[in-house]
Amino acid sequence: MTAKKLHVKTQYYNMPEGEVFALESGVKLKELKIAYETYGELNSRKSNAVLICHALSGDAHAAGFHDGDKKPGWWDDMIGPGKAFDTDKYFVICSNIIGGCKGSSGPNSISVETGKPWGLSFPIVSIKDMVDAQKKLIDFLDIKKLLSVCGGSMGGMQALQWPVSYPEMVVSCIPIATTYKHSAQQIAFDEVGRQAIMADPAWRAGDYYKKGHPSAGLAVARMIGHITYMSDDSMDKKFGRILKKEKLGYEFTSEFEIEGYLRYRGDSFVKRFDANSYLYITKAMDYFDLQKDDSLSKAFKDVKTRFLVIAFSTDWLYPSYQSKEIVKALKMNGIDVTYCDIGTNYGHDAFLLEFKEETKLIKHFLRSTHRT
Amino acid sequence: MTAKKLHVKTQYYNMPEGEVFALESGVKLKELKIAYETYGELNSRKSNAVLICHALSGDAHAAGFHDGDKKPGWWDDMIGPGKAFDTDKYFVICSNIIGGCKGSSGPNSISVETGKPWGLSFPIVSIKDMVDAQKKLIDFLDIKKLLSVCGGSMGGMQALQWPVSYPEMVVSCIPIATTYKHSAQQIAFDEVGRQAIMADPAWRAGDYYKKGHPSAGLAVARMIGHITYMSDDSMDKKFGRILKKEKLGYEFTSEFEIEGYLRYRGDSFVKRFDANSYLYITKAMDYFDLQKDDSLSKAFKDVKTRFLVIAFSTDWLYPSYQSKEIVKALKMNGIDVTYCDIGTNYGHDAFLLEFKEETKLIKHFLRSTHRT
Repeated sequence: MTAKKLHVKTQYYNMPEGEVFALESGVKLKELKIAYETYGELNSRKSNAVLICHALSGDAHAAGFHDGDKKPGWWDDMIGPGKAFDTDKYFVICSNIIGGCKGSSGPNSISVETGKPWGLSFPIVSIKDMVDAQKKLIDFLDIKKLLSVCGGSMGGMQALQWPVSYPEMVVSCIPIATTYKHSAQQIAFDEVGRQAIMADPAWRAGDYYKKGHPSAGLAVARMIGHITYMSDDSMDKKFGRILKKEKLGYEFTSEFEIEGYLRYRGDSFVKRFDANSYLYITKAMDYFDLQKDDSLSKAFKDVKTRFLVIAFSTDWLYPSYQSKEIVKALKMNGIDVTYCDIGTNYGHDAFLLEFKEETKLIKHFLRSTHRT
Repeated sequence: MTAKKLHVKTQYYNMPEGEVFALESGVKLKELKIAYETYGELNSRKSNAVLICHALSGDAHAAGFHDGDKKPGWWDDMIGPGKAFDTDKYFVICSNIIGGCKGSSGPNSISVETGKPWGLSFPIVSIKDMVDAQKKLIDFLDIKKLLSVCGGSMGGMQALQWPVSYPEMVVSCIPIATTYKHSAQQIAFDEVGRQAIMADPAWRAGDYYKKGHPSAGLAVARMIGHITYMSDDSMDKKFGRILKKEKLGYEFTSEFEIEGYLRYRGDSFVKRFDANSYLYITKAMDYFDLQKDDSLSKAFKDVKTRFLVIAFSTDWLYPSYQSKEIVKALKMNGIDVTYCDIGTNYGHDAFLLEFKEETKLIKHFLRSTHRT
C-alpha cells in the first residue's frame, strides 16, 4: 500500500508596509519576508498548531512534495497523516529562518529598497531574531498559542528560545540534539567553515551574486560540517577504509569511499545553498547563549511550557551532557520535563534518521499535551 | 637554577650515488636526503640509541636550541640531561620524515636531477617509506639495534611500523596517542584539509614555489587540525565563550577568543610549513594500515620488541580504544606490553603537554629496557 503523495506549496508572508522588525543588534528592518508551509488543518479553537524549526541547511519545505519533485521535504518521515506530527490531528507550520536562502529575507534575497541582493548589507541576525520573525508569522496566522514548538540542532535552539521569548504562547517544546549555548568547540567548527568560504577569492566580500559563487569554499565548509554530523562509529561502519578502486593509486585523487562521499556532499550542497547564508546562520548559532546572568535556570524563570528533551548517545557535535544541563535548569524551575537519550550510532545526524524512536516519543508526548 | 642551553645543529644524510631508495608505490628514488639531529653520545657498544619520530608538523629539531633561537625543539621537555630521554644516558636521534618540508627529501626540496623543487612530481610516500628512510640513516650511523623507537601521533605510527619492518633492530617501542590504521573519520579530517589547500587558486596544482604559496587554504587546513588536537573540555576551559571585545559586534570579524586563536594558529603555521608537504604527509597517514590479511595480530607475528603504549583519556582524534586494540594484538602474540591511559583534559595535544606523566612512565620503561 502506497500512501497518497501530499502535494504542498510554499507560501509567503510579507511584513505590512510601515511596520518595522527590530533585531537584537539594534538594526530595524523595514522589510521582512518569510517563506512558510503548512500541513494539516487548524482546528476551530486554534489549539492544534505545531511549529517546526529547521536546522542549518533546512528550509520551510519540511514535508510533502512540491509539484514535480521526486523527494519530499526534509522531515517527511515525521510529518504527515499518522506520523509523529500527525497532520490528521495537528496543524503543522514550518518557515524558513531569516538569514536563510530559501525564500525568507536573507543575504541572497532581493532588497525591496535597492532592488539588489542584500549581500553583506543584510544585518547579522540571532536565534532570538529568527524566533521573533516566526512570531510575526504566527500572529499573521492568528494563532495565540502553539501546542508545540519542535526542532533539531539549530531548530532546537529556536525551540528553546520560543518559551523564553514568549512564555505565554508555548504549551510544549521539543528540543532535539541541541544546546542552550554554543561552546568553544562548536564556535570553532563554525569559524573554520566561515574561513573556508571567506578564503575563496570568488567570495568577494559577499558581493558575488552576478559573478559566480564561492563554491570551492562553501564545499569545504560543508565537508567539515558533515564530519561533525556523523559519529566515528557510523563512519567506520559505512565507509571504514573501503577503496573506490581495487587498490591504492598513490595519487591525490579521492581514493577512499569516505573521500568520495565528502566531496559529493560538498558539491551537491553548493548547488542548493548560498555561501553568505552559511556565514549568517553559523554566526547566529555562535551567538546563541540562552543564559541570563550566566544562569540557564534564571532564563527559564517565567517558563510554563512542558518539555520533551531528546539527545543521541553518539552525537558529539551537540553531546548529551548539554541536553542534560537544559533538563537540570528546567527541573530547577519545577518545569515538567521528560528527557530521553536515544542509543544510536548515527551521531548528530540521528535527529533526521532515528525517526522511528522519535515518533514513539513525540506522538505520546503531543497526545498527552493536547489533552491537558 | 637555569640549566645550560643545549646548542644543537641539524645534520644531513645524503644517499650515496648509485644507490636507489625503493618506495612502497614501486617508485625508485635516485636521490634521498635526510635532515637529522642527535643529542647525547652513542656508547661504545652502540646500545643506547633511541629514535624519536615526529608528528605531522614536527621536524628533526626535537630538542635544544639552534644558534640564535629563543625557543627550543618541539619535544625539549622530554629530551635532555635528566629528562625522559636522558641525554646523559641515551643517544637520541630525530630525523625529518621524507615528504616533509624541513630538510629531508620532499615536495619543496630541490631535486638534484632537475634543479627545481619537486612539487607534485615527488612520489607519494607511506609511513613504511618514512621508516625505511630512517633505516638508511640508522645504517649510516652504524647502529645495529635501537634501544627504543618512540613517537606521538604520526610519530607513533612510525614507531609501530619499525618493529614490524625491522623486528631484529628494535629492542623497545613507545607509541603514543596513535593508531594502527587510519579510520574513516581520521581520513575524513585529512581529506577536508587537503581539499581546503587544493581549493586555493594559489595552489596551482602544487606548482607555486616561485609564485606565492596557497596560504589561505593551508591556514584553513591547520585550523581544522587544531580543533581535532584539543578536547571539547580544554577548549571550554581555555576559551569558553570569552569575547575579544567587551560585547558582540554583529560583524564577520573574529569576535570570540577561540576564533582569534584559530586564526593565529593558522596564520603562524603557513609561515613555517609547506602546503604540498601537508598533502603528502596526510596522505601517508591515511594510507597507514598495519594489518596483515585484515589482522593486526598477524602483523606483529615476528615482533620481539617490548612495548609501552600510551593514550590520553580525552584524545578524540586518536581515541584510546585504538591503542587498546594495539595492546590486545600484541598480547595475542605474547609480547611484553605495558598500557597506560593518562587522564587529561588536553585531548590529542596531551602528547606534547603531559610531559611530566610521560617522563615518569618512559624513564622507568627505558631504564628497565636498557638493563635487559
